[in-house]
Amino acid sequence: MINVNDNFLKLPGSYLFTEIAHRVAAYKEANPQAPVIKMGIGDVTLPLPAASIMAMQKAISEMAHKESFRGYGPEQGYDFLREAIAAEYKQTGVDLAADEIFISDGSKSDCGNIGDIFSTNCKVALTDPVYPVYVDTNVMAGRAGELLPNGQWSNLVYMPVSAKNGFVPELPKEKVDLIYLCFPNNPTGTTLTKDQLKVFVDYAHKNGALILFDSAYEAFITEKDVPHSIFEIPEARDCAIEFRSFSKTAGFTGTRCGYTVIPHTVKAKGSDGQVVELNKLWLRRQCTKFNGTPYIVQRGAAAIYTPEGKQQVRQLIDYYMGNAKIIRESLLKAGFEVYGGVNGPYVWMATPNAQSSWDFFDYLLKEKNIVTTPGVGFGPSGEGFIRLSSLGSRENTIEAMGRF
Amino acid sequence: MINVNDNFLKLPGSYLFTEIAHRVAAYKEANPQAPVIKMGIGDVTLPLPAASIMAMQKAISEMAHKESFRGYGPEQGYDFLREAIAAEYKQTGVDLAADEIFISDGSKSDCGNIGDIFSTNCKVALTDPVYPVYVDTNVMAGRAGELLPNGQWSNLVYMPVSAKNGFVPELPKEKVDLIYLCFPNNPTGTTLTKDQLKVFVDYAHKNGALILFDSAYEAFITEKDVPHSIFEIPEARDCAIEFRSFSKTAGFTGTRCGYTVIPHTVKAKGSDGQVVELNKLWLRRQCTKFNGTPYIVQRGAAAIYTPEGKQQVRQLIDYYMGNAKIIRESLLKAGFEVYGGVNGPYVWMATPNAQSSWDFFDYLLKEKNIVTTPGVGFGPSGEGFIRLSSLGSRENTIEAMGRF
Repeated sequence: MINVNDNFLKLPGSYLFTEIAHRVAAYKEANPQAPVIKMGIGDVTLPLPAASIMAMQKAISEMAHKESFRGYGPEQGYDFLREAIAAEYKQTGVDLAADEIFISDGSKSDCGNIGDIFSTNCKVALTDPVYPVYVDTNVMAGRAGELLPNGQWSNLVYMPVSAKNGFVPELPKEKVDLIYLCFPNNPTGTTLTKDQLKVFVDYAHKNGALILFDSAYEAFITEKDVPHSIFEIPEARDCAIEFRSFSKTAGFTGTRCGYTVIPHTVKAKGSDGQVVELNKLWLRRQCTKFNGTPYIVQRGAAAIYTPEGKQQVRQLIDYYMGNAKIIRESLLKAGFEVYGGVNGPYVWMATPNAQSSWDFFDYLLKEKNIVTTPGVGFGPSGEGFIRLSSLGSRENTIEAMGRF
Repeated sequence: MINVNDNFLKLPGSYLFTEIAHRVAAYKEANPQAPVIKMGIGDVTLPLPAASIMAMQKAISEMAHKESFRGYGPEQGYDFLREAIAAEYKQTGVDLAADEIFISDGSKSDCGNIGDIFSTNCKVALTDPVYPVYVDTNVMAGRAGELLPNGQWSNLVYMPVSAKNGFVPELPKEKVDLIYLCFPNNPTGTTLTKDQLKVFVDYAHKNGALILFDSAYEAFITEKDVPHSIFEIPEARDCAIEFRSFSKTAGFTGTRCGYTVIPHTVKAKGSDGQVVELNKLWLRRQCTKFNGTPYIVQRGAAAIYTPEGKQQVRQLIDYYMGNAKIIRESLLKAGFEVYGGVNGPYVWMATPNAQSSWDFFDYLLKEKNIVTTPGVGFGPSGEGFIRLSSLGSRENTIEAMGRF
């Protein structure tokens, strides 16, 4: 028998959302009439923007004819999409070359696969609670050490966020190499101001660390002074890469498209001291282990940058943020402790009477037929919280809040 | 500065096909009028099967309406596609459960990412010449050792194939863990009989090795006694996994869909001796680092299993194999030493006067305006050979053969 990657054997059970899906499926099978409302996984419910639909229908027609058929595309993504993204960034004052943008099949893939290009000895810092992919993929890579009784990993450096620190993480107290930051935050829905983010950029710049900035939810920002991109802070060009996604912005959860930005100015080194561009390493990784995002999907994604596309995306976002407002206000009115839901689609609420996350999850599923995500699934600092998604329908959102 | 994965720094230059694409682009830019015919990268040229086009148009319409919109799909792929694939296997006498099939965005991703679940200490054996992804991804994982002057890697075990051994690899002479086999073969186009393949299955079975069987080209097989699946050999269920792709079979090179088959009976172990199902590890990997193949694409792929779809795929394959026949016969008539092109879309020819692969590649590009793939790009045993693809148009194929 061959030997497996032992790190996989350290992972407890399933990926969080797979586990939740199983519990919900089991409940629904036992209670097929139960009017279950899903506010758990951050899945969208509104159809794709009409501009994307039309662009994809056109692209499929092209694939039906020899003259316009497309085979292999560039692994980095088509020019038309990368240039549209670069133009969009430029409008917010961030200058990027198209070859600093890498189109993918979504941020989950990118956040996981990016680890391929870093040394397995890199020390990783992340907020707590946090998107499980950052943790689990570093466990798989051997960077996390061993699982401790409290659910944390011995080799990861945690930056807890909670009401106590206003959900602003403190800088790591030990030397770290990779710092995962996600703002607007999954799961708490909270944000940092430009100054607060700059503290991290300055730290990374000074200490030779790399920020992996996940701005998958930037389109949901409503407040000023909340950066949409880490690169709004100029020094970040040397010490940060950014992940973005069409999933929540344009409803592409089932259509799969995202991109990673790696400026040429982000350098790293081999253990022999040679200096390399991370951009070059990611390109090599993608050219070797990936064969591009479907042409059809790239056309669908590019369509959101047209005037019609932008307007349609705006409507999607406004609809979901309308749900978020209802969720926040209903829960606050009912006396719950609530965060997020202002600059992102997630609402983070404290359980009543300090119940455990999974207990309250089970209660809500069985007694109220509402699916949520137990906060502890995102890390120990999430214990005593649950996450609610505002990406469902308005009707379900109102109905669910009525049940609380 | 953070440390990178040093293994990336060992890789010489670019991924093979990226390098070729650059040379060709440079030539075309300098010679925009040159009638360049592409027979290099194995990219298809005929449009998608009409059944796939229709299925995808329907799927896109579904994505335009709230009631039929689909968000996140199961990471393992939709039932409708996995069951269609299982039914297809059953018709060839291979019994698989749908959960032994994992839908992906293509074999290149799977062949590369599969390494995540194996120990980095696994010893790897592969044929020579070989699809560069198997080599490069093991270099990245740290299994390949150091690059030797002859282009081979110090830690990989090579099983050379050539006219001398009738393109039938010999068993490894040392203990190995992972054995990559691709039949019909890329790049040589040659095949093994069931008995010849069984030699490897028996070896793997007896020595606790795992065969990674790539049958991306199985749809092109014309001869009997050439297995379409490793699982036609029953003992392979314990010691093999299989990669398949819609790329060449149905023209999905730019649409991206493939699948990996991992029977529940394939076991492996942790270094503490615990036994695990590889199926479970791959599921965990995909649930954590992948978010599924687009719904639209899965509908397009499933359509090839309908009666119309099967007929249309047959027409595609027959067309390309018609090209292969022309290539083989033209080259044989011109006195060249030729292999392949009977059970697969690649033709493997010896260069005239034992020219080096790259020299003949350059000659063909500049003097004949034909793009090929230099055999040495697939490994040292490919030196003195070039690979020609029969996936182009009939007109270009005839024209190109006229130039030889």
